Amino acid sequence: MSIQFTDIVNKLPASVPFVGPEAQERSIDQLFKARIGANESVFGPSEKAISAMKKYLSEVWMYGDPENFDLKHALAKKHKVNFENIVVGEGIDGLLGYLVRLIIEKGDNVVTTDGAYPTFNYHVEGFGGNLHKVPFCNNTEDLHNLLDKVKETSAKILYVSNPNNPMGTVNKLSDVQTLIQNLPKTTLLCLDEAYIDFVDDNFVPKISLDTKNVIRMRTFSKAYGMAGLRVGYAIGEKDLILNFEKIRNHFGMSRISQVGALAALEDYEFISDVINKVKLSRNRIAEIANNNNCKFIPSFTNFVAIDCLKDSKFAKKVLEHLINNGVFVRMPYSYPQNRCIRVSVGLDKDIDLFEKYFPVALKENYLKQYFSNPKLY
Amino acid sequence: MSIQFTDIVNKLPASVPFVGPEAQERSIDQLFKARIGANESVFGPSEKAISAMKKYLSEVWMYGDPENFDLKHALAKKHKVNFENIVVGEGIDGLLGYLVRLIIEKGDNVVTTDGAYPTFNYHVEGFGGNLHKVPFCNNTEDLHNLLDKVKETSAKILYVSNPNNPMGTVNKLSDVQTLIQNLPKTTLLCLDEAYIDFVDDNFVPKISLDTKNVIRMRTFSKAYGMAGLRVGYAIGEKDLILNFEKIRNHFGMSRISQVGALAALEDYEFISDVINKVKLSRNRIAEIANNNNCKFIPSFTNFVAIDCLKDSKFAKKVLEHLINNGVFVRMPYSYPQNRCIRVSVGLDKDIDLFEKYFPVALKENYLKQYFSNPKLY
Repeated sequence: MSIQFTDIVNKLPASVPFVGPEAQERSIDQLFKARIGANESVFGPSEKAISAMKKYLSEVWMYGDPENFDLKHALAKKHKVNFENIVVGEGIDGLLGYLVRLIIEKGDNVVTTDGAYPTFNYHVEGFGGNLHKVPFCNNTEDLHNLLDKVKETSAKILYVSNPNNPMGTVNKLSDVQTLIQNLPKTTLLCLDEAYIDFVDDNFVPKISLDTKNVIRMRTFSKAYGMAGLRVGYAIGEKDLILNFEKIRNHFGMSRISQVGALAALEDYEFISDVINKVKLSRNRIAEIANNNNCKFIPSFTNFVAIDCLKDSKFAKKVLEHLINNGVFVRMPYSYPQNRCIRVSVGLDKDIDLFEKYFPVALKENYLKQYFSNPKLY
Repeated sequence: MSIQFTDIVNKLPASVPFVGPEAQERSIDQLFKARIGANESVFGPSEKAISAMKKYLSEVWMYGDPENFDLKHALAKKHKVNFENIVVGEGIDGLLGYLVRLIIEKGDNVVTTDGAYPTFNYHVEGFGGNLHKVPFCNNTEDLHNLLDKVKETSAKILYVSNPNNPMGTVNKLSDVQTLIQNLPKTTLLCLDEAYIDFVDDNFVPKISLDTKNVIRMRTFSKAYGMAGLRVGYAIGEKDLILNFEKIRNHFGMSRISQVGALAALEDYEFISDVINKVKLSRNRIAEIANNNNCKFIPSFTNFVAIDCLKDSKFAKKVLEHLINNGVFVRMPYSYPQNRCIRVSVGLDKDIDLFEKYFPVALKENYLKQYFSNPKLY
């Protein structure tokens, strides 16, 4: 006889949606020279945010305001919505967990794209939901088939990332709006917009706040360069948002994170500067892909998926070679996207290293494949 | 037709275990002059921790290490346990949520003390558990009756805080050990030791790491003066701890919080200095209670419960008077502890203000009560 865990927990593996780069550094026993694998923003946070956080460090003896009042007000103003339309949480990861908990009971159906954000899947499985996955179509989330799958399974949640990770493509505004119009009222669309700060306004869907079955997730982890602060937020109809108050960790937000996010919001120039830098770096990664006879997937994010034009085994070898040479990158984990590697934008010195090792990684692998099976060549 | 929430969520109120002092400041439209209500540590964090955090602020573009590797190693060393015996989370609040989720299904029984930590209750209700509450006995958690209630209800979790909040008393080491020995193996004891840094070592239970049904919660929010960083951790048998990997928000910990907590752990002098300051301030609060013909409950924490020797209505009026005069304090919410107000230790200037307004608050209320019902006097 011993303590008993829930049925759901008993069936779950001890897992982690992503192995962190620090764990990889420990396993290869060296520090990465370029950290361009987790779609973090090497351009860092706004100096104004750093100053604000510095100023308030000595105040960390106080709990953060559990209402996130000032931050929510600033966000409401930015998005031209009401205070009641916003909930702040411990990154989009934390908010996805709360959202799934609000809606999913054992056996409930959920639809997502095969190869989309694994942390969402982690939460769905963590609450006993059944995941139904629809393939990418032309490197893009297939809104048409996702909707069909929702109808077929009476799914309670549909997860769509726009722009998506790991391919970096975006859905047309009109397609997203059509999806919302045709979505059953009993299905909640969770629109993960972590990367939306990188796209032009005319790609950003306008969604009425009266739409009760759409929630949009945003973050300070990408364009704002503050992944380490863990600040995400969701925008939605007020009754939907109010439900988070029933279950969220009210005191979960670091006081320093609140201060940093608030100051960052007010630094408009910083964000437009980051977006420009991201575009330049993205172009450079694309050029490197071309120069090495690979294809790149045109990206609307701060990363580029490079199609190595072979299979996943090949891509994995390329990835390992880069990692062993101190260049942290990642790759999609589902077929057929896993023919690619995914490179986050970086400083020039980061991309220089990638430019140096990528051709070697490709060549080494061509040679290895050739010698193991020369007939193929 | 609209989106459907889970049965549990439908029955939950939108609630918050505690209203934050910032919300109270907004409602009375003035800032508190003394913030001595949330058992935060006005003595702040270690200067070494502040320096470390300052140094790494520009690195917040990186996610924190999801394994909390360095911090967990330092904690394992401090507690002379293994790395596998520790899980780090977003404050004890966050860890309590995970713990309840691991074990409690709809209808499962849980035992706690009536008037103990409301956030634990919030999580139990949030996962559909049935709370059974045992009264305090002589201002102390009643381990004997708690055990009886566990047996009577076949409870899956027993929550005990030691020292407890809101009365500040501690259970004898031998009593805690007897409880553990007699606890059914199917019941998990959640030992909340948020305030244990303030008690002498000979009050701290030695618990074998082979004991599969005890988990201890610790925090950087109290003695370490870092409530705003949200770093808590739990110590337990390794298989129990491993289960948290199935459901926790792996990337939930702020990178700055990790750095700050790690640096704080290494500043031994700071902690012993804080503990001394806490003792002095506690004595002063006790003296103020005595000087005002009230009783104080001898405390083993960084706060003192003052028995105003009247009913809860009276204590509430005293509290309101203090709050309206800019002195933030709280009070227990359950009978009969709610005859008290709870004052956190403070800087001299904080306690000066309390000393100034407490007699006025008492007097005003005596007078009010007298005029509303003179026969009672």
